[in-house]
Amino acid sequence: MEIKEKSLDELEVICQDIRDRIIDVVSRKGGHFSSTLGAVELTVAMHKVFDVKKDPFIYDVSHQCYPHKLINDRWDEFETIRQFDGLSGFTKPKESNADYFVAGHSSTSISLAVGAAKAIKLKGENRIPVVMIGDGSMTAGMVYEALNELGDKKYPTVIILNDNEMSIAKPIGAISKYLSKILAGKYYQSFKDKVDRFIKNNMPEGTTYIAKRMEEAMKLITPGILFEEMGVDYIGPIDGHNLEEIIETLEIARDMKKPVIVHARTVKGKGYSPAEGQHECWHGVGPFNIDDGKFVKKNAAKSATAVFADALLDLAKKHENVVGVTAAMPSGTGIDKLMKEFPTRFWDVAIAEQHAVTSMAAMAKEGFKPFITIYSTFLQRGFDQIIHDVCLMNLPVVFAIDRAGIVGNDGETHQGAFDISYLRFIPNMILCAPRDNETLKYALDFAYEAQGPCAVRYPRGAFGELEFKSTPFTLGRAELLKEGSSDKLFIAYGAGVTRACETEKLHEEDIAILDLRFVKPLDEETLRELSKKYSKWYVFSDSQKQGGVGSAILEFLNKEKLFVDVTSFEYEDDFIPHGDTKKVEESLFLNPSQLVEKIN
Amino acid sequence: MEIKEKSLDELEVICQDIRDRIIDVVSRKGGHFSSTLGAVELTVAMHKVFDVKKDPFIYDVSHQCYPHKLINDRWDEFETIRQFDGLSGFTKPKESNADYFVAGHSSTSISLAVGAAKAIKLKGENRIPVVMIGDGSMTAGMVYEALNELGDKKYPTVIILNDNEMSIAKPIGAISKYLSKILAGKYYQSFKDKVDRFIKNNMPEGTTYIAKRMEEAMKLITPGILFEEMGVDYIGPIDGHNLEEIIETLEIARDMKKPVIVHARTVKGKGYSPAEGQHECWHGVGPFNIDDGKFVKKNAAKSATAVFADALLDLAKKHENVVGVTAAMPSGTGIDKLMKEFPTRFWDVAIAEQHAVTSMAAMAKEGFKPFITIYSTFLQRGFDQIIHDVCLMNLPVVFAIDRAGIVGNDGETHQGAFDISYLRFIPNMILCAPRDNETLKYALDFAYEAQGPCAVRYPRGAFGELEFKSTPFTLGRAELLKEGSSDKLFIAYGAGVTRACETEKLHEEDIAILDLRFVKPLDEETLRELSKKYSKWYVFSDSQKQGGVGSAILEFLNKEKLFVDVTSFEYEDDFIPHGDTKKVEESLFLNPSQLVEKIN
Repeated sequence: MEIKEKSLDELEVICQDIRDRIIDVVSRKGGHFSSTLGAVELTVAMHKVFDVKKDPFIYDVSHQCYPHKLINDRWDEFETIRQFDGLSGFTKPKESNADYFVAGHSSTSISLAVGAAKAIKLKGENRIPVVMIGDGSMTAGMVYEALNELGDKKYPTVIILNDNEMSIAKPIGAISKYLSKILAGKYYQSFKDKVDRFIKNNMPEGTTYIAKRMEEAMKLITPGILFEEMGVDYIGPIDGHNLEEIIETLEIARDMKKPVIVHARTVKGKGYSPAEGQHECWHGVGPFNIDDGKFVKKNAAKSATAVFADALLDLAKKHENVVGVTAAMPSGTGIDKLMKEFPTRFWDVAIAEQHAVTSMAAMAKEGFKPFITIYSTFLQRGFDQIIHDVCLMNLPVVFAIDRAGIVGNDGETHQGAFDISYLRFIPNMILCAPRDNETLKYALDFAYEAQGPCAVRYPRGAFGELEFKSTPFTLGRAELLKEGSSDKLFIAYGAGVTRACETEKLHEEDIAILDLRFVKPLDEETLRELSKKYSKWYVFSDSQKQGGVGSAILEFLNKEKLFVDVTSFEYEDDFIPHGDTKKVEESLFLNPSQLVEKIN
Repeated sequence: MEIKEKSLDELEVICQDIRDRIIDVVSRKGGHFSSTLGAVELTVAMHKVFDVKKDPFIYDVSHQCYPHKLINDRWDEFETIRQFDGLSGFTKPKESNADYFVAGHSSTSISLAVGAAKAIKLKGENRIPVVMIGDGSMTAGMVYEALNELGDKKYPTVIILNDNEMSIAKPIGAISKYLSKILAGKYYQSFKDKVDRFIKNNMPEGTTYIAKRMEEAMKLITPGILFEEMGVDYIGPIDGHNLEEIIETLEIARDMKKPVIVHARTVKGKGYSPAEGQHECWHGVGPFNIDDGKFVKKNAAKSATAVFADALLDLAKKHENVVGVTAAMPSGTGIDKLMKEFPTRFWDVAIAEQHAVTSMAAMAKEGFKPFITIYSTFLQRGFDQIIHDVCLMNLPVVFAIDRAGIVGNDGETHQGAFDISYLRFIPNMILCAPRDNETLKYALDFAYEAQGPCAVRYPRGAFGELEFKSTPFTLGRAELLKEGSSDKLFIAYGAGVTRACETEKLHEEDIAILDLRFVKPLDEETLRELSKKYSKWYVFSDSQKQGGVGSAILEFLNKEKLFVDVTSFEYEDDFIPHGDTKKVEESLFLNPSQLVEKIN
């Protein structure tokens, strides 16, 4: 779509078209909604002022990128957003050269801009990186690390701070309050007016110098002082839905040839009244009825997240020392329920996984039992802290790892594929997984009692329904769900149990099934016994193969000099695409009807 | 040592005693020196004002903790600092209850304080966390994440910012400049004086209100505004060697019952003139002569780091697109040499591993070839960025991983044990390792040409000397160093080759040795061939066993249904203690004379 040559009036029409298209498609297909609606004018203005053919357009997290996709050659394809083989919900260079980087994790944008700016400078090119970042992304440490270099080196960069005062959930923390204060104008307006008047009316003669200095002082207390102190210029706040104002401001910022933050106030969900100004519930949505904003009801089974939240609530009621934290995903992780019931014991620390992990390590040292509830993919941000602050101290912290395995439509940036591989080698760590709702409760009971760090993983959506009677978890003990008459054994972990059971039903033989429960420590005794009876083992787990569950079993067999034929049905060495989970699994040959063919 | 009841004069004597003890022991044994000398008065004052028996004393990175150890029951044992079975160079709860946490990685302290403060509040106790953090640690994102919560929730906390304007190397970035400006007083002093005078002399009658407002404006532009804006009170700067001033200030801060930063100016190396105000060279030292400050010369072989730096320099001269980054370790990684020669192409981005990785990802996208040079243990901080910003984009970034394997005296927080395990499962990643100086150059040549992300690991100190002629690296190709007449094969990776060769010499049999070179992708063809000839394989690698080199080989053998008896001599599932590397390896039964006993 051509933007650069369009008049303001024409651009207003384009904004409306984009908004209509987003509302139409997302209401039918689902997707990220309110943040992307709030960014329409900002995105159009970016394309007017900057040149998408040469300037790096960098969208933080990029769930606000739908207008960008529509402008850049994906108007029709937009129907396929987030569907298997369709468009990604995030920016993706493989889709279009207009997409500079993949982004699904927050707060990478300013670092990317710094790198791009360095490259541009070295190449002596006439280009400038332009970033769009939401206020919610401003809490992560990466932003600060990047500003620290940017404010020092002064690379020309325009950072549009798209401030809807929300992030995904409610705004959290000092930075958020700071930004709100600016937006509300409380910060300095009344004071500024008074001093301005004072300078004008009361200044004795011959004090021009002082007056000038005072103006400088005023400048120092303008809204953006926090950024100015870090060496980055600040303009704002501006109305992020006023196209003319945005374009004018971006032109000024572009021509300043230094790092500038343009602070734009936007309304999440702008242009669709049921969503306007709403919090988490309109962030990522399923299909809904356009007329009344009612979501299309699905008779979905209770999610593992909901089961987790209820179970944790029970634990928290029973034990005063249970505390917990989420990093900007209160309802996504179910912790909102706990925050409501126990506001002094459960916290949302904003997008700050490093801080979440380490602050809870200290609480564990003080005798509390912290539950750190973070998605598998986002916990990667706290990796060093898990090693250095939790496991090295052998502290009884629980990692409740939601969204383990394939997460569906969010796709490759969000898949929970790696947690077993990145946690299993850390000394002192206990890794376990429930197979269904009942065992999730037992797993949490176990985790509560564990004397060291313990991670419990569970999938997005609902567990499969299983018929086995549940028993409590015991450290390092697997559970043999059924014996078999064949030479085969299915070893299943977590949600892999359902897949193993379904595969077994499709297979002509009667196959034994072991619910491994603990991938660390392994139930060596049981495995040793089973190796005598079953010579072919098949591993079912929603995890990366390298370093994963199968790998743990191979290490054990090798140590024991046991010779068993092991086949692992974990994920191969590739990033996993987005789309409906069943379809994605099918593309990986992981559906039971496909797996059964491989077992002979 | 009793501090609380002592008079100021007595405390001055204690400071001198502590300083003498540190200079005496470190001059003979080596250790962290200048930062710990600079923190003597601050530490003594902390013990005077706070109660180490109940208040959490939290030292960031904790290489400045020697005065703390001397005060807290380790005066005599201090002789054993950093030696095997001796005291750790960092705080360590196993040594003393006075040590609140292990810390060897930077910037965890404020998060720990927030966690402790939450716990104290919930328990209703009368305690307060006190943090000592250096200016160098203030650049990492964790600090910002923690301040974001602390400034919002206002937990009583005292943060002593020990500012020697240095960090380990030179100060880097906007934050550093900001702090320096405060210390230099350039920031506001002259302006403040003028306005003060103006208010006093020129204010017309009836403007008391305005005068008061103006004072408020002054407050807004006092030095600590950046912190004040984040909701944390600021006091300073104070003289960090003036015991009386520190004690008075800390008492005020303690009694404020909210988060306060006390900004203290200190001199690194204070009290030992050859080290005073010196940069990196006096940070961590070997033995030296007290009288003239000359280091005891060792005829050490050229370090792998130095070989790396020379080779990278050659590459940078040859190829204009070679760029690189270090995170606050310019001389530790050898990048200082490159920064000097190519100041526009090599950067120290301060302690900011996340930003280092992601900014270089953007440079790779722009056609540059970035070398990210970070120690194995610190690269853990950039883990998510490696996955999300580099590997997902399949960008040709080189990770030059220094300090892989056992690092010696720094010990458990610094061991480079995990990098193979935490990188091997990431799709698109290439992992290789040189065995000696010559092959390190070849590995870098290969990495330069690699089309995707590539990690090269090498050890602290010097490689062993080997006799094998070197050949260039080819993707996924191992090098058979020698055939053998026995049924055994040694598979060695990186510095493990030396150990394999030494072990082979001690063994009575003639054993084949394979230099694996690539743990990802493996040389499947060669391994397949070798499995026909050799039925017992032994793995030599300086890496964690879980998910490590042996694990990669087991995965391969299993996939191919090859039955080989594999024994891995990698690190077992434990954190590895500090001390002389040889002694540590001996404690792990990894010396060749010990290994040879296990091979039969």
